[in-house]
Amino acid sequence: MAMNFTAAAAVSIPSLSSGQYSTVYNLFSLVIASMLFSGLYLLLAQKRVAPRYRNALIISAMVCGIATYHYFRIFDNLKESYPPGTTAVDPHLLSSVQFNEAYRYVDWLLTVPLLLVETIAVVALARNVSKRLLTKLVPAAILMIILGYPGEMTLDAGPRLIWGVLGTLPFLYLVYVLFVELTRSLDGRPAAVRRQISALRLILVGTWTVYPIAYMFPVIGGEFFGGAGGFVLRQAGYSVADILAKAGFALLIYRLARTQSILDDPAAYDYGETTPTSAASQGVRSAA
Amino acid sequence: MAMNFTAAAAVSIPSLSSGQYSTVYNLFSLVIASMLFSGLYLLLAQKRVAPRYRNALIISAMVCGIATYHYFRIFDNLKESYPPGTTAVDPHLLSSVQFNEAYRYVDWLLTVPLLLVETIAVVALARNVSKRLLTKLVPAAILMIILGYPGEMTLDAGPRLIWGVLGTLPFLYLVYVLFVELTRSLDGRPAAVRRQISALRLILVGTWTVYPIAYMFPVIGGEFFGGAGGFVLRQAGYSVADILAKAGFALLIYRLARTQSILDDPAAYDYGETTPTSAASQGVRSAA
Repeated sequence: MAMNFTAAAAVSIPSLSSGQYSTVYNLFSLVIASMLFSGLYLLLAQKRVAPRYRNALIISAMVCGIATYHYFRIFDNLKESYPPGTTAVDPHLLSSVQFNEAYRYVDWLLTVPLLLVETIAVVALARNVSKRLLTKLVPAAILMIILGYPGEMTLDAGPRLIWGVLGTLPFLYLVYVLFVELTRSLDGRPAAVRRQISALRLILVGTWTVYPIAYMFPVIGGEFFGGAGGFVLRQAGYSVADILAKAGFALLIYRLARTQSILDDPAAYDYGETTPTSAASQGVRSAA
Repeated sequence: MAMNFTAAAAVSIPSLSSGQYSTVYNLFSLVIASMLFSGLYLLLAQKRVAPRYRNALIISAMVCGIATYHYFRIFDNLKESYPPGTTAVDPHLLSSVQFNEAYRYVDWLLTVPLLLVETIAVVALARNVSKRLLTKLVPAAILMIILGYPGEMTLDAGPRLIWGVLGTLPFLYLVYVLFVELTRSLDGRPAAVRRQISALRLILVGTWTVYPIAYMFPVIGGEFFGGAGGFVLRQAGYSVADILAKAGFALLIYRLARTQSILDDPAAYDYGETTPTSAASQGVRSAA
């Protein structure tokens, strides 16, 4: 791994046009705003779900928080690595500060396993079933991130492709566990809950496919994909994927927790939304 | 001690390659993210454990908070001590700002006794028993840190070894208290709890053995261990050990607190995880 950290220094693009710089800069700021306040919302909305689902909300909020921390670092790093030229329209030339792509991998090393933990937590399985699934999912997720990293540290198509393919293997195993083994544990759940869990898994795996696409831009090569254009597309791809896979996913976790809370205990958690015609709810309405 | 604080200035490594710098830099950032959000998680998850165990969670969160503070300082210190060269791939030469290893000792002076306090707090012994154990454990921990410090302030094998051995003596006493005296106080606890407490102690003492290994790299000497390579390995060792011994340990404290809360009062704290087939849990489901 030490060798690959060393190679990291070689990846940086020598120059970004002022438009390319602004695009990446504004996207990073969008990610910070999205992550920070999705995470805060989940913490503030905790009482709207039953206690058994709250852990999933807290973990989702931690994922958004960890990503917020890293995007603050990435944002500051971009400013240091590509300072402005003499005028505002000049290209931003790479300074002596390397643009540190490793922040993303440190982030994913923590957040990707936690995304799986929050998925299993919101399904609220028996403790031993959760444990069995997570002892398969979490190591696969960590292996996926570690295997992707050496490929990220080079723009050479060969090693990038090889490490990319190696990282895909634990990903496929993870998909198998989520779609086959998890499904077996869902017998007896209400149809509405099973539908939402299926959607949740699809979106989890679906948003994750954006990462390898962004990862593979340099493999396409050429002046655009191998240079500044590919850099901007890759940063944009990672940023949008992070918003969907973390902030967006957290909101879906919340929605599933709400649905289940209402089904488990309508008296406590249905604020008249799903039973607008019930006597109780009407009574409150007309009294108001 | 004053002499040794002065001597600290002599320890710094004159130059780090850009890869060595990045490795240490990224590890420090990983520590910040791990500590900060493990600590926050413990504060947010407090309601999931019974009141008698919450103090252990709060203290664990404080330990993570103190470490987060110190790693922010250490991270900024690294950036100031080893600024970039002319280009991103040049070596980072030591500036006029010393890399201050004392941050770690200040951190440990506060956090190591607190780790023992949280361990005793989560076991929830009678007040006089806790007090008796802590009046042995806390002074031993403080003595261990103080005796290790003079050795850290030199790269000479002799004094480093002597202070290292002296610091090991209170550590051995501490292990004795944790494994012999604490065990006597655990009679009558459920087997599951006794198993988790045993694991907790093993992990506490196990992760602490990483520190003397990292500490001893300069004693091995030679160009690698006595120079920049040893510096990177030592920082990596301390960082990983800190994550395991503080953030990881905090999560184990939380898990033990959860287990005990569920055993003490299943109606309040078992959210259907350990009793998925119980009448109560099924009743809620079928009513839905």
